[in-house]
Amino acid sequence: MKLVTYRASIEAEGRLGVIKDGLVIDVARLGLALGETFAVDMLGLIEQGPDGLASLARALEATEGKRPAGIAVPFENVRLMAPIPRPRKNIFGIGLNYVEHVAESAKSLDTSKNLPEKPVVFSKPPTSVIAHGEPIQHNAAMTQQLDWEVELAVIVGKRATRISKENAMSHVFGYSVINDVSARDNRRAGQWIFSKGQDSYCPFGPAIITSDEIADPHNLDLWLRKNGEEKQRSNTRHLLFDIPTLIADISSGITLEPGDIIATGTPAGVGAGREPQEWMWPGDVIECGVDGIGVLVNPVVKIGA
Amino acid sequence: MKLVTYRASIEAEGRLGVIKDGLVIDVARLGLALGETFAVDMLGLIEQGPDGLASLARALEATEGKRPAGIAVPFENVRLMAPIPRPRKNIFGIGLNYVEHVAESAKSLDTSKNLPEKPVVFSKPPTSVIAHGEPIQHNAAMTQQLDWEVELAVIVGKRATRISKENAMSHVFGYSVINDVSARDNRRAGQWIFSKGQDSYCPFGPAIITSDEIADPHNLDLWLRKNGEEKQRSNTRHLLFDIPTLIADISSGITLEPGDIIATGTPAGVGAGREPQEWMWPGDVIECGVDGIGVLVNPVVKIGA
Repeated sequence: MKLVTYRASIEAEGRLGVIKDGLVIDVARLGLALGETFAVDMLGLIEQGPDGLASLARALEATEGKRPAGIAVPFENVRLMAPIPRPRKNIFGIGLNYVEHVAESAKSLDTSKNLPEKPVVFSKPPTSVIAHGEPIQHNAAMTQQLDWEVELAVIVGKRATRISKENAMSHVFGYSVINDVSARDNRRAGQWIFSKGQDSYCPFGPAIITSDEIADPHNLDLWLRKNGEEKQRSNTRHLLFDIPTLIADISSGITLEPGDIIATGTPAGVGAGREPQEWMWPGDVIECGVDGIGVLVNPVVKIGA
Repeated sequence: MKLVTYRASIEAEGRLGVIKDGLVIDVARLGLALGETFAVDMLGLIEQGPDGLASLARALEATEGKRPAGIAVPFENVRLMAPIPRPRKNIFGIGLNYVEHVAESAKSLDTSKNLPEKPVVFSKPPTSVIAHGEPIQHNAAMTQQLDWEVELAVIVGKRATRISKENAMSHVFGYSVINDVSARDNRRAGQWIFSKGQDSYCPFGPAIITSDEIADPHNLDLWLRKNGEEKQRSNTRHLLFDIPTLIADISSGITLEPGDIIATGTPAGVGAGREPQEWMWPGDVIECGVDGIGVLVNPVVKIGA
């Protein structure tokens, strides 16, 4: 299932929708039409677990070809929000999780050239999240080194601590795309949250694809284009720490909860690692794609004086 | 005002209370008795801003000496929760914010001996928060270097971005105490969230003291005792980056919101910096005090195999 959070107008509240045949099917209205009650938002749906998804799937199937009036709008008429507009926890980021990115980072940043022995976990605050189409803020008073990082995002489905690698995939609700925007000149004594956690530094979306639709999340091409020119291309099979390892590792100390987001790391080709170095500037348009999951597009806009 | 979140029994929901004369006055019941509606929890009260506090203060004054029956319970009968049991964002921590702690860290950890030029911001997830009295979890399979850090916590009162230093103090709702528990052997390529963000690694409380009651937050003694023995003692006047600087700095890129928490950093005397080094072990009891704000006490307990 391809799930979005959307609104029909700029002031409206976010609504949960399912993308199907170029339409956004409104989940709450589908429920009303059928006399059923569905989750009102993405976090609610995730918390319902497999039962919530199954009853929604049954309702979609039952109304296939005879969809009640007024429950669907053309996709191009809606304004997307981030799939989870306000995560309840920081987003977990994973640094240095593709071998060639470890090498380019060691040359251009202050990280080690050795492969990390454990996942390099960092965080982005919930206030950093923006939707597909929303602007990445460029504040020249703050940064001259605003960089891009396409990543596969894993959406956690269940509350648990100390998840085993063997069980980990059953804790995945779905997948999405994140651009782990990073102001390279805003690191603080090596800590990354200020450089990666500013407002608008977490473009997220456009949709969540539920895990049942992804045969192998460790074999997905991911790529990034700046103004149409490809800057990153790799495949999730090159993840240094795979998804079960990340889930087991983080949850070994930190309770994971429904709706938690893990950005699994970026491959080579970031601006800092290029010769000469390149950065994002106002007017640029950044497209982040993970094949089978979606394409996340965001313009860069100037803010501040 | 001295504000707490408490419950009357272990299963009960958290309730907002005011500590007065050794009693916890229940804010919701006070409202019922007076026919007024007050915030139902700490975040709600903080969001109401000065008006919410003012009307609560008037109600307390109006009932002084003639308190309606059933609105207060003796403090020793309640079970405290963290003042904000579930922050809506990661807690912002500040590393290396006392000169002598910068020196001890450079000797014992991997940080620079030079004073930082900007605040060293890191984060702890909301799941790391525990209350006064709740156990700090010691998992010997994860860490052999569990350390303590007493800190003054600042509670943000208003939503704002790019707050000026001059206006910053008007954004402070109140103060509390945090023990920035740190597993020194759980850092990841220098990133601190996994070492400082595990479940139970953010003891927080016991109460929030509203800012009007603290004449000078930059002149407060703070101290920590392990099993009754003093390990840390300093004064917030020694903060390298003071509270207005921290608020201006974080909000220069990250929107601050009502109920956000900034742990302002710890002075010298942590376990890693001692000779020989000392750590926390199951059975230890840690007391963190900030004079005028409160004393936060937590036992260390063994978890895991």
